[in-house]
Amino acid sequence: MNLVKDVSYQSIRNELQTFRKNNPLIHCITNEVVQEITANVLLAAGASPAMVVGDGEVVDFVRAASALSINVGTPTTERVEIMKMAAKAAVEFHKPWVLDPVAAGGMKWRDKIIFDLLDLSPSAVRGNASEIRFLAGIGKGGKGVDSTDSSESALEAAVQLAQKYSTVVAVTGETDFVTDGSKILRAQGGNVMITKVVGTGCSLSSLMSGFIANNTEAVTSCAACCAYVKKASELAAARSTGPGSFHDNYLDSLYILKPNHWQ
Amino acid sequence: MNLVKDVSYQSIRNELQTFRKNNPLIHCITNEVVQEITANVLLAAGASPAMVVGDGEVVDFVRAASALSINVGTPTTERVEIMKMAAKAAVEFHKPWVLDPVAAGGMKWRDKIIFDLLDLSPSAVRGNASEIRFLAGIGKGGKGVDSTDSSESALEAAVQLAQKYSTVVAVTGETDFVTDGSKILRAQGGNVMITKVVGTGCSLSSLMSGFIANNTEAVTSCAACCAYVKKASELAAARSTGPGSFHDNYLDSLYILKPNHWQ
Amino acid sequence: MNLVKDVSYQSIRNELQTFRKNNPLIHCITNEVVQEITANVLLAAGASPAMVVGDGEVVDFVRAASALSINVGTPTTERVEIMKMAAKAAVEFHKPWVLDPVAAGGMKWRDKIIFDLLDLSPSAVRGNASEIRFLAGIGKGGKGVDSTDSSESALEAAVQLAQKYSTVVAVTGETDFVTDGSKILRAQGGNVMITKVVGTGCSLSSLMSGFIANNTEAVTSCAACCAYVKKASELAAARSTGPGSFHDNYLDSLYILKPNHWQ
Repeated sequence: MNLVKDVSYQSIRNELQTFRKNNPLIHCITNEVVQEITANVLLAAGASPAMVVGDGEVVDFVRAASALSINVGTPTTERVEIMKMAAKAAVEFHKPWVLDPVAAGGMKWRDKIIFDLLDLSPSAVRGNASEIRFLAGIGKGGKGVDSTDSSESALEAAVQLAQKYSTVVAVTGETDFVTDGSKILRAQGGNVMITKVVGTGCSLSSLMSGFIANNTEAVTSCAACCAYVKKASELAAARSTGPGSFHDNYLDSLYILKPNHWQ
Repeated sequence: MNLVKDVSYQSIRNELQTFRKNNPLIHCITNEVVQEITANVLLAAGASPAMVVGDGEVVDFVRAASALSINVGTPTTERVEIMKMAAKAAVEFHKPWVLDPVAAGGMKWRDKIIFDLLDLSPSAVRGNASEIRFLAGIGKGGKGVDSTDSSESALEAAVQLAQKYSTVVAVTGETDFVTDGSKILRAQGGNVMITKVVGTGCSLSSLMSGFIANNTEAVTSCAACCAYVKKASELAAARSTGPGSFHDNYLDSLYILKPNHWQ
Repeated sequence: MNLVKDVSYQSIRNELQTFRKNNPLIHCITNEVVQEITANVLLAAGASPAMVVGDGEVVDFVRAASALSINVGTPTTERVEIMKMAAKAAVEFHKPWVLDPVAAGGMKWRDKIIFDLLDLSPSAVRGNASEIRFLAGIGKGGKGVDSTDSSESALEAAVQLAQKYSTVVAVTGETDFVTDGSKILRAQGGNVMITKVVGTGCSLSSLMSGFIANNTEAVTSCAACCAYVKKASELAAARSTGPGSFHDNYLDSLYILKPNHWQ
């Protein structure tokens, strides 16, 4: 196993600053449940979200956008076709795209969808430990959308998956690990309260696509994005009495945090 | 009419404790509007939500879940087929399922959908007074999703409906009544501010399915669930200045409330 | 160019009072992302929202509702057919309907949908400057859903569009302008934080349809609605530390504001 290093403060600063300057237009094809929080997370962080899913415009919009995010939380046959059209267009137009393989390993029908999407060259895959272990052929997936393994337990799986698909893999949880199959970066901190708010993981995947659009080194962009979100989560939890107040404080913290926080 | 009794503190304590211990995986097939708040209510209360709606996986997921919740708030022809597949699977796999007959009595097309679902043996039906009165053949339904009758006015209708379909019926409003056609339990308290936040009724139905999965007596589980939600609503209203802050305080209160609150 | 006048305090008072008294039932066929905030904005303001989209009931529901709101944020081929059925029914049943032409000018497929809907006689069109300029044949649309022009820059376009389609046009932004092609009313104030919360513009369009149902003068109803929302936004921003807290404070402010605030 390669050496694990914490993503540096300088990387976080640089990546967040570039992201804010770019104000990326992020095309999200995500699940039915988390569309609003995903849009609000992207707005709070400094991006422009757009959820374009019509068969007559999805390819045009990939061309216009800075990055694409695909999440299979509530797939339907029709929506999966849109996802594939979009993913192919992203590769054709050289736009980064991130796959969030929600509940991989839980149901055969969904697993096939996820592997089909994996074959369309995502720039990054973000999942919890159970999902990443399953995709790498280790473990059998989690209970619904929750992870039942620690992120450390999926580190070797993440490296293998990244190598096999020539992609970046982010396995997130109490600690986040991001790897391109050779370098491994770690983001620590955060707060467990974030697991009590739906869509915080899904919106992280979308945000990550916007950080990859910074066009520096994808593994570093993704790790910086994880560190930024962990810090916002930490700040939010310190002011919250439960998941309702956490939700708002999280959005406020994403908005308030400036690159120079990391000194 | 049978004697109406308040659900006991001991029942609320026991049911909430069992629910928390089980951390039920609740499969929600709900309307387009309330998916996020439904997931967040379930997470705050101590369950794991999952909104699985793909035709290739919905039956598999009913098998994996602890309970199923079906809400007809925004039915489409395709989604109704998914609901029926799921309801049949729930009966086959002996999983409790709850029907939320949103706006029953308002439109003929929807009414047929609701009666078709009622024929698929729900474990419980939760509605407002107008909806329950209409389903029992008394009254003509409400204005949109709001009830125009008091819950007391639907008590006899609830008993008849429960008997006819061998199910539990919860009619909720300023006071909640839950009946299995013989026993009638009441939950009092709450705050009217909850009617100014979309999805609080819908998410109660989903939560109720998780309480039925406690596998004690369904009428008691449902009434305890109502009492828990009423208390959370009361605590939230005391700290709120309007429906925006109420929404967050409600989620916080669901999260904070412990079984030993009821002494 | 005609004279621009601020909407009067008396108009705002009267319109808000009538709206609250009527408690209009507003039928929203809106995009996937903003359904929950739209419902919550309408509830907080004093209306009853309903998102009815089934092909077997959409026409019946237009007949029952006070007003209709159509938003093309995430069009699909199926949903567009529903929108057209609903718009035609609104005209037939003499119900006001408002069109929100999200991202007009961005993609050809969507633009055709929007022009087809414009041909179905909306009572009002609400958009940002880029959208309104594009629809009037001036300018080429914005970046995604955000406006890249000031609302002043679209004032002449708004007047032309209103005249061409015999409708009311509201162009909203830092300042809001509402015109029926002859009269031009202005609503000032507000706070830029509102642009960091998804669905605040979309829900304004829905709210506007309920104000037109006041059945006074549509241009005045719409301008009063804009002024009401701007005031709520201002009050919310004064109490907020970011877009998360703003979201809640905005709903609270919509709820708390009474007609006699404008003296």
